[in-house]
Amino acid sequence: MSTPSLLILPGDGIGPEVMVEVRKVIDWFGANRGLSFDVSEDLVGGAAYDKHGTPLHDDTMEKAQSVDAVLLGAVGGPKYDALDFSVKPERGLLRLRKEMDLYSNLRPAQCFDALADFSSLKRDVVAGLDIVIVRELTSGIYFGEPRGIIQEGNERVGINTQRYTESEIDRVARSAFELARRRSNKVCSMEKANVMESGILWREVVQKVHDEDYSDVELTHMYADAGAMQLCRWPKQFDVIVTDNLFGDMLSDAAAMLTGSLGMLPSASLGAPMANGRPKALYEPVHGSAPDIAGQGKANPIACILSFAMALRYSFDQGDEAARLEQAVEKVLGDGLRTADLLGEEGIEPVTTSQMGDAIVAAL
Amino acid sequence: MSTPSLLILPGDGIGPEVMVEVRKVIDWFGANRGLSFDVSEDLVGGAAYDKHGTPLHDDTMEKAQSVDAVLLGAVGGPKYDALDFSVKPERGLLRLRKEMDLYSNLRPAQCFDALADFSSLKRDVVAGLDIVIVRELTSGIYFGEPRGIIQEGNERVGINTQRYTESEIDRVARSAFELARRRSNKVCSMEKANVMESGILWREVVQKVHDEDYSDVELTHMYADAGAMQLCRWPKQFDVIVTDNLFGDMLSDAAAMLTGSLGMLPSASLGAPMANGRPKALYEPVHGSAPDIAGQGKANPIACILSFAMALRYSFDQGDEAARLEQAVEKVLGDGLRTADLLGEEGIEPVTTSQMGDAIVAAL
Ligand SMILES: CC(C)[C@H](C(=O)O)[C@@H](O)C(=O)O
Ligand SMILES: CC(C)[C@H](C(=O)O)[C@@H](O)C(=O)O
Repeated sequence: MSTPSLLILPGDGIGPEVMVEVRKVIDWFGANRGLSFDVSEDLVGGAAYDKHGTPLHDDTMEKAQSVDAVLLGAVGGPKYDALDFSVKPERGLLRLRKEMDLYSNLRPAQCFDALADFSSLKRDVVAGLDIVIVRELTSGIYFGEPRGIIQEGNERVGINTQRYTESEIDRVARSAFELARRRSNKVCSMEKANVMESGILWREVVQKVHDEDYSDVELTHMYADAGAMQLCRWPKQFDVIVTDNLFGDMLSDAAAMLTGSLGMLPSASLGAPMANGRPKALYEPVHGSAPDIAGQGKANPIACILSFAMALRYSFDQGDEAARLEQAVEKVLGDGLRTADLLGEEGIEPVTTSQMGDAIVAAL
Repeated sequence: MSTPSLLILPGDGIGPEVMVEVRKVIDWFGANRGLSFDVSEDLVGGAAYDKHGTPLHDDTMEKAQSVDAVLLGAVGGPKYDALDFSVKPERGLLRLRKEMDLYSNLRPAQCFDALADFSSLKRDVVAGLDIVIVRELTSGIYFGEPRGIIQEGNERVGINTQRYTESEIDRVARSAFELARRRSNKVCSMEKANVMESGILWREVVQKVHDEDYSDVELTHMYADAGAMQLCRWPKQFDVIVTDNLFGDMLSDAAAMLTGSLGMLPSASLGAPMANGRPKALYEPVHGSAPDIAGQGKANPIACILSFAMALRYSFDQGDEAARLEQAVEKVLGDGLRTADLLGEEGIEPVTTSQMGDAIVAAL
């Protein structure tokens, strides 16, 4: 088999500096575990706009389509706030998700034991928490037409459209059920079927996929507002949550915060299998570009490093090596190393982004 | 001035039993404070469907339009799950909101001192919390057209439309700024302007209203996903949050849960002033109909009683009497009285719904 290819898109803000640490990890796997990657790097978001006047150049899009996996840092920043909607940094990321057709976004919310006290929630509410939100990523109100700001009489109207087809719901439901089978066999689907017809169709299709092909998995339904509540109250009641693009955006951010360690959480966005059997895939941290701390050595590289671990698992079938990397991260945290975002305990001095990266490589 | 009129709509589930307690409180104010109301009662939600085949009879709608304030219990329940979307219990509530044009929904998330330990969040994160979410309530994806489930080729598509006009955003922004002036003079507006054009217009109009008429109020903007996160991390950073209908639904439920006392939280939905100067108004608890505990004397009547306190304040200009009622509630909680939803402390026996109501009347 030829060397697998990896496209790295550091993006904006803290993206580039956390990606430097990921490359150390990638190099370690090449040198020590015989896992080599054909790595290339390119621009996305504001960085791409600065150079090309677009947040994602067509050449980059093409590369992303042809590699085995894409690893992305983060996009956006106040520097680009005044840009027209069509060239905002976020459009680059959304174009990647849409054109690669990455419909299933896995967002684990896992509470690391060493960090359980760091959550704003009580220790017993979050310690040992390990849930995954499966967010539909290529449809819904993010992409539905018509959209825009139009003139109507003497005022303007802002319009967006939530649209879900049966097949779009079907495929993401399947990916959630498949994941649940490899975990605790439990899926909770969230929508607002009491208010939105798209939610009614969502609930119906998820139920149908369940009844036809996954009746061994326990399925429940919950309104998304109640879901937000329950996530804050007792998140351990969940295992896999499946929900639409917009609800998934909100719920996964809330869930991420529960763990007390946003700088730690990776994500995988998966599409259909390519010719070589691997799914189209993009991996990125859940955190944003954190422009306020960019370039100061304060960023936590762990979310991005764990995103690479997800790549090892989901794209390259290297579950054991992924676990090795995850254990190295836990070890370093257990040893008390903390980047600035993780402070809160007494008497701990923060380490820099690169010290954290080095420590993880050493632990490997 | 003639006796003010109050329409009571107990609704479904625990709605009727909590409303019995509210009536005790109303009677107390009549007997002891010279505050009499012309009270009438009618059906909404599943209860109305059972009798009339519609979740809100036209006669009830007309009454609601003509009274000084409406007090609602809760709607919905599994008994009505299979009903057609158009006659679901929730449609009754949504019709009231829409036809009374109650565009400004105030949802306080307040942490009662006696209950601070009851939250799933750490005490210092929530103790003393006192924020208000101002949710737009008559537009957005709840009401936008086109909507429905349509056939397209060989599959069905679920469609809903988010629509906001400038004037819809303008008026709810004003109500948030007005409220902020009576509080800590701070508003945070939340949307997804990085993804949705309706969010761009939202941000722009809120900023314009601010710059033109409320530049004394501190205004910030936040993406709604980050807002969900920050609510879970450090909610005290906020004072007034203004946001759209759907985001408001999610964010206010999350905020409610933070306080650890969902059964305690009231809400006010306000529209434009009527001929007598009072705003069109509907008051209701934030909690739902809780069908699982209905009829067992377990429901907490406090959210509904505090909704009546909000009515005293916002509809009847009786801020002092509202404060008296709120203090009575705090006193009873301080004395250690707890309904079943508030258990968690050692060695406390729950009181029933009616015992709680009686105790509050006694404390008055
Ligand atoms: C950056 C933004 C476009 C994005 C989203 O809204 O999907 C982000 O919030 C996320 O959750 O990945
Ligand atoms: C019952 C339902 C229609 C309602 C809503 O979604 O607005 C409820 O969740 C609320 O928040 O008042």
